[in-house]
Amino acid sequence: MYKTVEWIENDGIGKVRLLDQTKLPQTVTYIESNDLEEIFAAILRLSVRGAPAIGCAAALGLAAVALQINEDFFEQLKQAADHLKSSRPTAVNLEWAINRCLSKINTNLSPLQAKEILVTEAKLILQEDIELCQAIGKNGQSLFTKEKTTVLTHCNAGSLAAGGFGTALAPIYTAHASGKTVAVISDETRPLLQGSRLTAWELQQAGVPVTVICDNMAAQVLREGKVDCIIIGADRIAANGDTANKIGTYGLAILAKFHNIPFYVAAPYSTFDFDLKSGQEIPIEQRDSDEISNGFGRQTAPDGVDIYNPAFDVTPVELITGFITDQALIHPSQLNSEK
Amino acid sequence: MYKTVEWIENDGIGKVRLLDQTKLPQTVTYIESNDLEEIFAAILRLSVRGAPAIGCAAALGLAAVALQINEDFFEQLKQAADHLKSSRPTAVNLEWAINRCLSKINTNLSPLQAKEILVTEAKLILQEDIELCQAIGKNGQSLFTKEKTTVLTHCNAGSLAAGGFGTALAPIYTAHASGKTVAVISDETRPLLQGSRLTAWELQQAGVPVTVICDNMAAQVLREGKVDCIIIGADRIAANGDTANKIGTYGLAILAKFHNIPFYVAAPYSTFDFDLKSGQEIPIEQRDSDEISNGFGRQTAPDGVDIYNPAFDVTPVELITGFITDQALIHPSQLNSEK
Repeated sequence: MYKTVEWIENDGIGKVRLLDQTKLPQTVTYIESNDLEEIFAAILRLSVRGAPAIGCAAALGLAAVALQINEDFFEQLKQAADHLKSSRPTAVNLEWAINRCLSKINTNLSPLQAKEILVTEAKLILQEDIELCQAIGKNGQSLFTKEKTTVLTHCNAGSLAAGGFGTALAPIYTAHASGKTVAVISDETRPLLQGSRLTAWELQQAGVPVTVICDNMAAQVLREGKVDCIIIGADRIAANGDTANKIGTYGLAILAKFHNIPFYVAAPYSTFDFDLKSGQEIPIEQRDSDEISNGFGRQTAPDGVDIYNPAFDVTPVELITGFITDQALIHPSQLNSEK
Repeated sequence: MYKTVEWIENDGIGKVRLLDQTKLPQTVTYIESNDLEEIFAAILRLSVRGAPAIGCAAALGLAAVALQINEDFFEQLKQAADHLKSSRPTAVNLEWAINRCLSKINTNLSPLQAKEILVTEAKLILQEDIELCQAIGKNGQSLFTKEKTTVLTHCNAGSLAAGGFGTALAPIYTAHASGKTVAVISDETRPLLQGSRLTAWELQQAGVPVTVICDNMAAQVLREGKVDCIIIGADRIAANGDTANKIGTYGLAILAKFHNIPFYVAAPYSTFDFDLKSGQEIPIEQRDSDEISNGFGRQTAPDGVDIYNPAFDVTPVELITGFITDQALIHPSQLNSEK
């Protein structure tokens, strides 16, 4: 069984071990590293992706890097932490996990003490994430009351996106494990195809029936009555419930509303960023045009053409049926809206 | 300047000449053929695509094939015609063009006379298509009243999809030629990427500014207020206005409605199939799963995963602002609705 993010120790050298998701679904290979630039690059190029997994990877990665620092410990640690935080601007868990680790230490500690605390805290974040995923899975079970439930999902918010078995896919795995009949329709999710490369792969590994569609087929599938509900993950949720997630989520939510299909966001409660009143304040990462023009190993757009490539969009809370969190299934009306 | 579909004659042998669109945007190559199976295959694998271009290609292709028939002329011609018609099930122009050619001949004619008539009629269909495109371009000019107009389009309904300069792109080319400032945002249009490979290429050739996005970014682009209107082509329009077009069109129409953006269908009046009361009667072609899992030189979904790949969807007339045809810009209320 693969593990997405792991802490490994050999001969007293700690490293973070990441399943290299850019190689899926063809090859299962791992990156083992305690090198800051290598870990930074792995997050940047999406070898590890998904907000909870990035948080775990960053915490474990920072701990692995910290173990190598021999002088100016607190200064170098801070630089490393700031650098790691800058690898992806939208995912709240990245900053959250690093800040949580840093908050456990102070300059009154010896570097050795601080290193131990950082490793312990990073491992704890991973362990908590595993438990969070289980709680999300449990709190989503009210969606699976029919003889067979088909869920449409977008991107990958599964075991490849988390320390545990995922957020959006957690209720599906839990239902499947308890003997309920479930099936998944997975948007392929351009440009990086996390849906077809990752979600389809991990569901297949788990024996959950999955059908891949192109993103632009979702409306047709909804119209055909094939989908009972939509569950997606989240990279950041504002205080009012506006949700940043992979580009295409917002459009999908509009299609769900039009077809009267329930639309759920599944995420750890920590994904809520209560400092942000609404989604308008969520920064949206723009990514390289090559992902669109040369994404499949072949050039698919003419040389020099303009390309627009936002990595995320923000789904307004009005389009969201509920939030499946580790604490509870939360209705939007339960949020303190600032509107 | 490239030509999408053309009749060529060398040493008395007539052939249809098709720009091989599967090779774009990298290479401009042509298929010249009077071989039935070769022409059938060119239509099937989308070397020529777009309803009007398929109609022209089928008519010219049938004429080229007919010139080679030496015995049992009318019987063999009928078999060839039926075979060609079966290459793509959804595009009404394919059947329409072939039936039109066949209607001009009868078994009282000599094969030689019939051959001449078939060639003349096929050339006429091409010439008429060029004129239709010009008329569509003219009839869409009321959309271009602002200082700058940005049009979002899906798939390719341009000069690569027609004998002339296209349907959805015709008003854009006409506006551009008359000195108006226009820009286009082109959905890449999975699975076959006609938007990024073809629409972006031909607009670039014509000097019209174009930006490529993934299909799932359209909602975000509409939300950002970047789009003044949407114009798409049509493969078949039912009597009530329900419109079959490339998969993704229906979802785009829902997004347009949600954002209050006008949504236009541009097509020759002949695209209306008045034998069909509504879109429910339009047959929808399902295409091979490889287009999604192995589309561009790299495997992007795990082995053996289920894939759903409808080539078209049907946009209900309620979501359509107007039909830009060669006869007029038609409002849905002007259609004899059967509802």
